[in-house]
Amino acid sequence: MAHLTDQEIAAKATLKPIEEIAEKAGIPEEALELHGKYKAKVDIKNLEGNENDSKVVLVTAMNPTPAGEGKSTVTVGLADAFNQLGEKVMVALREPSLGPVMGIKGGATGGGHAQVLPMEEINLHFNGDLHAITSANNTLSALIDNHIHQGNELNIDQRRITWKRVVDINDRELRNVVIGLGGPTSGVPREDGFDITVASEIMAILCLATDLIDLKERLGRIVFGYTKDKKPVTVKELGVEGALALLLKEAIKPNLVQTMEGTPALIHGGPFANIAHGCNSLIATNTARKLSDVVITEAGFGSDLGAEKFMDIKARFGEFQPDAIVLVATIRALKMNGGVAKSDLGEENLDALKAGIVNLEKHIENARKFGVEPIVALNDFVTDTDAERNFVLDWCEERDVKVALTQVWEKGGEGGIELAKQVKEALETPNNFKQLYDLDLSIPEKIEKIVTEVYGGDGVNFTDKAKRQIKEIEENGWGDFPVCMAKTQYSLSDDEKKLGRPTGFTITVRELIAKTGAGFIVALTGNVMTMPGLPKVPSANHMDVDAEGNSTGLF
Amino acid sequence: MAHLTDQEIAAKATLKPIEEIAEKAGIPEEALELHGKYKAKVDIKNLEGNENDSKVVLVTAMNPTPAGEGKSTVTVGLADAFNQLGEKVMVALREPSLGPVMGIKGGATGGGHAQVLPMEEINLHFNGDLHAITSANNTLSALIDNHIHQGNELNIDQRRITWKRVVDINDRELRNVVIGLGGPTSGVPREDGFDITVASEIMAILCLATDLIDLKERLGRIVFGYTKDKKPVTVKELGVEGALALLLKEAIKPNLVQTMEGTPALIHGGPFANIAHGCNSLIATNTARKLSDVVITEAGFGSDLGAEKFMDIKARFGEFQPDAIVLVATIRALKMNGGVAKSDLGEENLDALKAGIVNLEKHIENARKFGVEPIVALNDFVTDTDAERNFVLDWCEERDVKVALTQVWEKGGEGGIELAKQVKEALETPNNFKQLYDLDLSIPEKIEKIVTEVYGGDGVNFTDKAKRQIKEIEENGWGDFPVCMAKTQYSLSDDEKKLGRPTGFTITVRELIAKTGAGFIVALTGNVMTMPGLPKVPSANHMDVDAEGNSTGLF
Repeated sequence: MAHLTDQEIAAKATLKPIEEIAEKAGIPEEALELHGKYKAKVDIKNLEGNENDSKVVLVTAMNPTPAGEGKSTVTVGLADAFNQLGEKVMVALREPSLGPVMGIKGGATGGGHAQVLPMEEINLHFNGDLHAITSANNTLSALIDNHIHQGNELNIDQRRITWKRVVDINDRELRNVVIGLGGPTSGVPREDGFDITVASEIMAILCLATDLIDLKERLGRIVFGYTKDKKPVTVKELGVEGALALLLKEAIKPNLVQTMEGTPALIHGGPFANIAHGCNSLIATNTARKLSDVVITEAGFGSDLGAEKFMDIKARFGEFQPDAIVLVATIRALKMNGGVAKSDLGEENLDALKAGIVNLEKHIENARKFGVEPIVALNDFVTDTDAERNFVLDWCEERDVKVALTQVWEKGGEGGIELAKQVKEALETPNNFKQLYDLDLSIPEKIEKIVTEVYGGDGVNFTDKAKRQIKEIEENGWGDFPVCMAKTQYSLSDDEKKLGRPTGFTITVRELIAKTGAGFIVALTGNVMTMPGLPKVPSANHMDVDAEGNSTGLF
Repeated sequence: MAHLTDQEIAAKATLKPIEEIAEKAGIPEEALELHGKYKAKVDIKNLEGNENDSKVVLVTAMNPTPAGEGKSTVTVGLADAFNQLGEKVMVALREPSLGPVMGIKGGATGGGHAQVLPMEEINLHFNGDLHAITSANNTLSALIDNHIHQGNELNIDQRRITWKRVVDINDRELRNVVIGLGGPTSGVPREDGFDITVASEIMAILCLATDLIDLKERLGRIVFGYTKDKKPVTVKELGVEGALALLLKEAIKPNLVQTMEGTPALIHGGPFANIAHGCNSLIATNTARKLSDVVITEAGFGSDLGAEKFMDIKARFGEFQPDAIVLVATIRALKMNGGVAKSDLGEENLDALKAGIVNLEKHIENARKFGVEPIVALNDFVTDTDAERNFVLDWCEERDVKVALTQVWEKGGEGGIELAKQVKEALETPNNFKQLYDLDLSIPEKIEKIVTEVYGGDGVNFTDKAKRQIKEIEENGWGDFPVCMAKTQYSLSDDEKKLGRPTGFTITVRELIAKTGAGFIVALTGNVMTMPGLPKVPSANHMDVDAEGNSTGLF
């Protein structure tokens, strides 16, 4: 059989009308807002059900290769496996950002026979949520600059505006800009920069809000900058939280789609886990909890990033807990963590595997630090050899680590049955979930705890700027917020070249940004950037669409 | 009765399910893609019908007050009147831009009892077309800058990039910017600027394309800049027209909604008429022509702007013609053109009316220049007096100008019956439609013709820069494109303070931009800007949304 791309496999799938999926999920007709034949938004006002009757499975991973380890694929395949076992299950995922789709990686909707559909529309504009966030973010920027231009009653210091503009595009050219040029009729000149939309505080707010009123109040609490005497200025003082909430009133509704096997899926909100908190919306997770007995959800990148934030930010705000944790590992990522170059990952290499498995070991320990015993999902790739597979399975068994080989890319839900059975067993066993840190620790103490316990580092260096900002954050009364670390996904440290299980390192925090609407403090480490760039030959160069609207090149 | 806002009137309306409207319009189920309960996109591949069996009514206007003269309101009310007369009618309108909605004017969906619904959603993100255009426009920008950053194989001169970024926001701060700062990993520094999305060439292309393949070819023909040896560089050379077309594959489908009286309405594409060509999409107009016997459509601002471009650009490319022209006038606009200040327009002032009616006279002459006898629609306002109304009606009758008083704001379709009857009569009478100029005239000759014949000016001054650009345009073989004038909407001249029927003026063309994908040359006159600003107190400050998602402050 010739090797098909994910897009080709998706194109062969027969989709069910979304009304049928909604019925299966128990979503009443009055709560369903169709977007074409295979997508819908769910108006959560019209839903019944109790969130606390449901179990939540969090899918996380070891440190990945640049191609990713198939975490979304495993998440989807695991849900399909639960579906095959006759469980009432829903999957809750993040929605893709257009920037990377046009850049390096194609889609973000699973792969092979474990995908959510329609993959093409989900990967492109979907139901417009990211555009609404871009729009609200940049409308606020325009309102801030207009306020200054029109007389600046709030005494905003244009050198101390922390609110940046955003685009949902990988556009390095916009990282650092000067705006307001062209004389007195065209605004006040100042430095600014653009982030990618998923890094917007509004994305975080949408993903943490419990309803439209909570969303509006959080928008009102955003601190977008400081006055000339260094007092924080909020959106509420500018008086535009109503307009921003209005721009987001459709975006706040979770999106219903289906997996290739007809399992209901909610895809909603999409912060990256390296530069933001990396989880789909709390509203989508809670909606899935209301509707189903088992919710399979993921958090971006490894347990050092998305999972830590899932526990310490999302689950804390949402007052729920993961009932099981799945840790996705691949032979390829293990070998890369053992020092193999990207181009050689297809070759059998047991020595590299042995050297790299310490990375997995650390991620297993990380799950345990939150009081949850993880299940390792060894996600099968065509280049893996039996000797390699057996090495990993044996390694786990010798250490009493639960493990299952998954072949969901090739076989869909069927390839995840063994994993599903192990997860089901775990769901029936109470765990001792706890957050990593208490909120009453100081900001440096919280960061210290994440770095030493989750990353395995020796400690934290704060730049002078960071120290000054911590002082200001505490003075402003935001010291009890949780911390959202911005860090490379490729290493447990802040240096993407330190693979495996690095030790003896410290993390440098160079800047802190208070996201008072989201309710956390972002700590920027290493050279992680909140605006990616495009590669030499972007994916966009291979994309096309024909007269009928059929596309190619998305994968 | 207390005076209700347009939004309050809209909120009282009972909408029919959009499937019912589609059935009435003759749209088969397989061509209908629902977006919630009251909006849909129409997949034109699945439509039958012959465009040439239908009549087109163009609604234009005299030079307006800043509040507008209710052109969309008359367009909607006239369609409802035709509907009441039992005609198979559709209305085709532009979709609103979010920038002005947040800025000064609230919505753009008609008013009173002559509105298209759901007004709130149409005024906000609607079905995402403008966001898709913003996205495609800025993805192209990122791809251009990335190409330069990655080695610049095409030898693009970063000082000669004519392609600007866009946002759908009134944001003066972004008019003139410097981008690519921050050192060698963050792009190549250069000057840039942002236009409002509706000024994007991609908006013009979407509005002039006949199908997805034509759209893709037009995108490929876009010249986004020049090489270091001053040769034009196209999107096709960059190899990304497929990706851009893919981003627009849903946006190209016209949007179906309904008027308050249940008349089917297509709302699609929204270029402003002062800085762009000012007409809804050709696809929407042609779809309405296929489906109905009478199509009521509008072109933005006065006959000097939208209508001229409707005839000379849209109707020329679309190879159809307006069968009747309705010219909207108001007592308020006539008095303003007679020298009355905005704050005094509510007072009876027959002298000002007499002084200002020369503006209407010129717009009547303009319609006749295209071989079509216009029908004046005197759009009634509550502050108008009988003496004022009678003056205008008598003035028209004395000159054999067809005129009808319309009260569609207050009465809906019923208030437009007299106008509909006159329009119907005109539709049964063949006219002598012709474009104003032939394409084989030179660019300066075409501009000269528009200025002297439509604006009533003495001639045109070209700046040195404009002269140089005309030479380059002709050398590049684009001399036979039509011209799209960018000019203030408030005056027939390029000076917004010259009201009434100015004479003895010349127009200064300061810059020309070749829009080779759209297929026209934009000529910038006076100080018209392609990026508006926000007022001191933006509409956004009055907007709100409640827990149920109900909004206030959109009007």
